Amino acid sequence: MSHQIVLHHLNASRSERLFWLLEELGLPYTVKVYYRLPGGAGPPELKKVHPFGRAPVVELDGELLAESGSIVRRLLALKDAPGRENLEDVTGDDSAFWSHWCEGSLMTFFQASALIGGSSQAFLAGAGGPISEEGNKSVGDYATWVTTNVLGAQSKVHLQEIEAYLAAHPGKYFSGTDKPGEGDILMLFPIRSLFEGSRKGKFEVGPATKAWFDKVKARPAVKKAFERLAKEEEGQKKSNL
Amino acid sequence: MSHQIVLHHLNASRSERLFWLLEELGLPYTVKVYYRLPGGAGPPELKKVHPFGRAPVVELDGELLAESGSIVRRLLALKDAPGRENLEDVTGDDSAFWSHWCEGSLMTFFQASALIGGSSQAFLAGAGGPISEEGNKSVGDYATWVTTNVLGAQSKVHLQEIEAYLAAHPGKYFSGTDKPGEGDILMLFPIRSLFEGSRKGKFEVGPATKAWFDKVKARPAVKKAFERLAKEEEGQKKSNL
Repeated sequence: MSHQIVLHHLNASRSERLFWLLEELGLPYTVKVYYRLPGGAGPPELKKVHPFGRAPVVELDGELLAESGSIVRRLLALKDAPGRENLEDVTGDDSAFWSHWCEGSLMTFFQASALIGGSSQAFLAGAGGPISEEGNKSVGDYATWVTTNVLGAQSKVHLQEIEAYLAAHPGKYFSGTDKPGEGDILMLFPIRSLFEGSRKGKFEVGPATKAWFDKVKARPAVKKAFERLAKEEEGQKKSNL
Repeated sequence: MSHQIVLHHLNASRSERLFWLLEELGLPYTVKVYYRLPGGAGPPELKKVHPFGRAPVVELDGELLAESGSIVRRLLALKDAPGRENLEDVTGDDSAFWSHWCEGSLMTFFQASALIGGSSQAFLAGAGGPISEEGNKSVGDYATWVTTNVLGAQSKVHLQEIEAYLAAHPGKYFSGTDKPGEGDILMLFPIRSLFEGSRKGKFEVGPATKAWFDKVKARPAVKKAFERLAKEEEGQKKSNL
């Protein structure tokens, strides 16, 4: 049985995980690319796909799927996917933990930091009305204080948890097995951001976390995923000219 | 087979869900109560239980479980729980969606609002150093602007999604069935906050959402859960005197 799959992809977003999963599963898919507005928000076209206006959204045989953890679960349930055996057979406790923890804990701190960073800049640029020089300085000071002392401190604790788990499971994935699972697919997004994305150099990252990322990047499906992602973004840019 | 269960409960936190689930499952459990510090953070004693310093944490037969979605999944997997039949038999797609969506989407907006509200107050009270009257006003203006225009707007869209789903599944739970499931247990926390907690009166809440909450509150297990919660908090207060 073949499936009709459309991946609605927003640049620099959680949708990069789905490229990995779809390549790993060996499922053919088409991609629709959206670009963030200058302020970082998703474009209005994304709201036409799904009221949240966020990415990823996946169409699976005509059904609209949202929410990363839930989309990954649904795609892993396609037992007829040619590459299904490349991934953890049945989602175990470890994978399920990291899948929930990734968005429910780690990303809440990362995302709040990004939100405060972006929105304080917008506010200082006048999005909330005119602001004095002294007010400007205070809002900047507050944003720095909360992202560093409150959110940064919490993020650090969470990154140490990742490192401790991987160090205690040498050579394994977040599934606790030799094959990546639900938890690994979810963790790609925040961990990649620490090495190659918006969080590069902002946190101390341990050797076991680095080893996980290197091992993931060496997988043929991941290489294909990032090639496809780059090609789709480039192609869409051209078609928009 | 009987299980040894300890629920580490922080007042006004996500751990209230676990009272519901444990009562519904008919599993005996002991409770350890922690109280938030005046600023809202968890007390240092919670860090001794788990490095995150957050709640809930559940000890299940000697194993330490964290992360709400994952804890709920683990407890639902105890097929020998006397009340297991009160809940959705096997977690279906709908329940799994709401379980991920609850923390991964809705709560990220709710929590960022609470974070900005609490931390801006702390900052204005001097947590980040002295601040001028004009700086004070600007930080307050920024906090109001971002929680109302950015986070409030997103939260509203998400509450409309809840209402739309429940209205399309009259009389059903978030499981899509006649029995509550994983998604319902997770959704108790944010929905209760809209009617009886910190978000009361702050958002328009639709009739289908209200009907869900009334139906949940009428369940004997939920009544017992909130009675037990109140009793445990009260008991611990007395023992601290």
